Amino acid sequence: MSDKKIIVGLTQGDINGIGLEVIIKTFMDPTMLELCTPVLFGSQKTTSYHRKNLGIEEFSFNPIRDFNVINTKRVNIFNCYEEEVNIELGKSTELGGKYALKSLESAVDTIQKKKIDVLVTAPINKHNIQSENFKFKGHTEYLEQKFGEPGSSLMMMVSETIKIGLVTGHVPVEKISSSITAEKIEKKIKILHKSLIEDFGIRKPKIAVLGLNPHAGDEGTIGNEEKDIIIPVIKKVNTENIMAYGPYSADGFFGTATYKKFDAVLAMYHDQGLIPFKTLAFNSGINYTAGLSIIRTSPDHGTAYDIAGKNQASEESFRNAIYLACDIYKMRNEYKELSANPLKANPIKMER
Amino acid sequence: MSDKKIIVGLTQGDINGIGLEVIIKTFMDPTMLELCTPVLFGSQKTTSYHRKNLGIEEFSFNPIRDFNVINTKRVNIFNCYEEEVNIELGKSTELGGKYALKSLESAVDTIQKKKIDVLVTAPINKHNIQSENFKFKGHTEYLEQKFGEPGSSLMMMVSETIKIGLVTGHVPVEKISSSITAEKIEKKIKILHKSLIEDFGIRKPKIAVLGLNPHAGDEGTIGNEEKDIIIPVIKKVNTENIMAYGPYSADGFFGTATYKKFDAVLAMYHDQGLIPFKTLAFNSGINYTAGLSIIRTSPDHGTAYDIAGKNQASEESFRNAIYLACDIYKMRNEYKELSANPLKANPIKMER
Repeated sequence: MSDKKIIVGLTQGDINGIGLEVIIKTFMDPTMLELCTPVLFGSQKTTSYHRKNLGIEEFSFNPIRDFNVINTKRVNIFNCYEEEVNIELGKSTELGGKYALKSLESAVDTIQKKKIDVLVTAPINKHNIQSENFKFKGHTEYLEQKFGEPGSSLMMMVSETIKIGLVTGHVPVEKISSSITAEKIEKKIKILHKSLIEDFGIRKPKIAVLGLNPHAGDEGTIGNEEKDIIIPVIKKVNTENIMAYGPYSADGFFGTATYKKFDAVLAMYHDQGLIPFKTLAFNSGINYTAGLSIIRTSPDHGTAYDIAGKNQASEESFRNAIYLACDIYKMRNEYKELSANPLKANPIKMER
Repeated sequence: MSDKKIIVGLTQGDINGIGLEVIIKTFMDPTMLELCTPVLFGSQKTTSYHRKNLGIEEFSFNPIRDFNVINTKRVNIFNCYEEEVNIELGKSTELGGKYALKSLESAVDTIQKKKIDVLVTAPINKHNIQSENFKFKGHTEYLEQKFGEPGSSLMMMVSETIKIGLVTGHVPVEKISSSITAEKIEKKIKILHKSLIEDFGIRKPKIAVLGLNPHAGDEGTIGNEEKDIIIPVIKKVNTENIMAYGPYSADGFFGTATYKKFDAVLAMYHDQGLIPFKTLAFNSGINYTAGLSIIRTSPDHGTAYDIAGKNQASEESFRNAIYLACDIYKMRNEYKELSANPLKANPIKMER
């Protein structure tokens, strides 16, 4: 495996949010440049505005025009636009969305051309980014269309202590039940299973599947989706050598820390997974889009307009998102090498 | 206010579960008898079976027949039945339900006659307890019918760090949205508000109301219940001097520990409240039924058949349930005295 430093593409996110603040804070630490080579898709002017606003005097960027001459010892900026932009910290504006999209499109184009290795995205605002070129609920759906097919990706929340995947995402509570099908659950279990093996290096992953209803339906007295849909899917994937267990009653599962016995958890809906995840991970969690051909991570927070420009944002989640993207990049390469050349997997046993 | 020790009625719960184990373990600590006088509604024979099974040699009960001669220095047992009962630890049996109900009915009858002050219930199994006399989803609904009116109670989870009330309880996810009405939310806010004042001694309670949908509906892009139902109710109760805030996006609310700024949280559905509660309280939480004329608490765990009889159950939640019932009893009395005689409330200011 090559020892070349991983090139991390960074999008700037909404220019009125905390995205550039957490990016600057992350790379104030010079050891980050030993781990990876960052390329920020944005603009020197916009970034300098944020730097000055934070009261940071010394923080230099290396502007690049050609992805073949990336400086591996600096924070590189690729100027996606040259103009001065009106920044209104903490406000949702049309420009905020427009320049978030410019950054994202440029980064996506560059990773398609394999000039960057992984993508770490800063938060966007789902409303102001909508336009001719962006008619999606968020990053995940946009990237799925570019680097997968509908339903081929899985939103996964990752922290030191827990990994949680979601069967359904930004769906109103009223429509959760009708959005859950056996096919969808099976697909998500399989994406999760594959990702745990190839992206996280877990050879025999154990997956816990949560029930949909309170007390996992309590034998049918509080809903039937467990009996009718979830249990049959678990049995089916078990016959295909996937170690999935459940369905578990969600409150007890987290209350007794049963999640510690598993490599990952599959939640049926957004808040069922995100509430315990954020309660446990508190500021350090990472959002990972499994199932894509590229590697993309992001912090688990949003634009946080309420604290934008106030120097109050924590860069921990963003930094962790970079670490995770790099780890997955190495793990995928390792997995490819091992599976391409199985004899190397266990060199000692393979002596003849 | 009288200094007499509070008489705590204890139901035994399902005789095949961990109920009697946590009761015995709780009162192994002699200091508990300084706090309160317990009366267990059950049977010496059933209790002795559990005591022996736990390998506990010394633990004496005081059998009583007359509630006027309760021993304030012993654990009193009122024999609700005399017969020997077949106990099958860890199994859901018809007898398990039958003798759980005998205990509950006897305790309810006794608190109605004001011979005990508060009620702490051990867990039942919702299936095997069903009978001619018990056609309810659980304790809460049964007690509401005895000591309130339909919808007059509120399931509340209480711990050191957080109090959470639920608008809807054991409702399948499919039916949550249609179960939520403005009237119901308003009623639950008011029960919660009243309970915080009268039962917990908080003079000006601050209540956080969660949204129903992911991201609290994200301005209508992920559901409309927030705009159409929840926000108008919050505005309405605000005009009635109730400090309710929200609706908050549930995952962020817990992820940023915003709950610490409030006296209580109102969740829209079971898992939205119970998942974060149990994740935070882990084994020490208490279930309190607010809004009833009597005081009833219970531990936040179930019968736990999987560990029944194995001496693995923690009594912490049950002990806390007793503490809380006693605290609420004192607080209600104090509140009654103060509101009956307002001059006593602030004696210094009231000098004339």
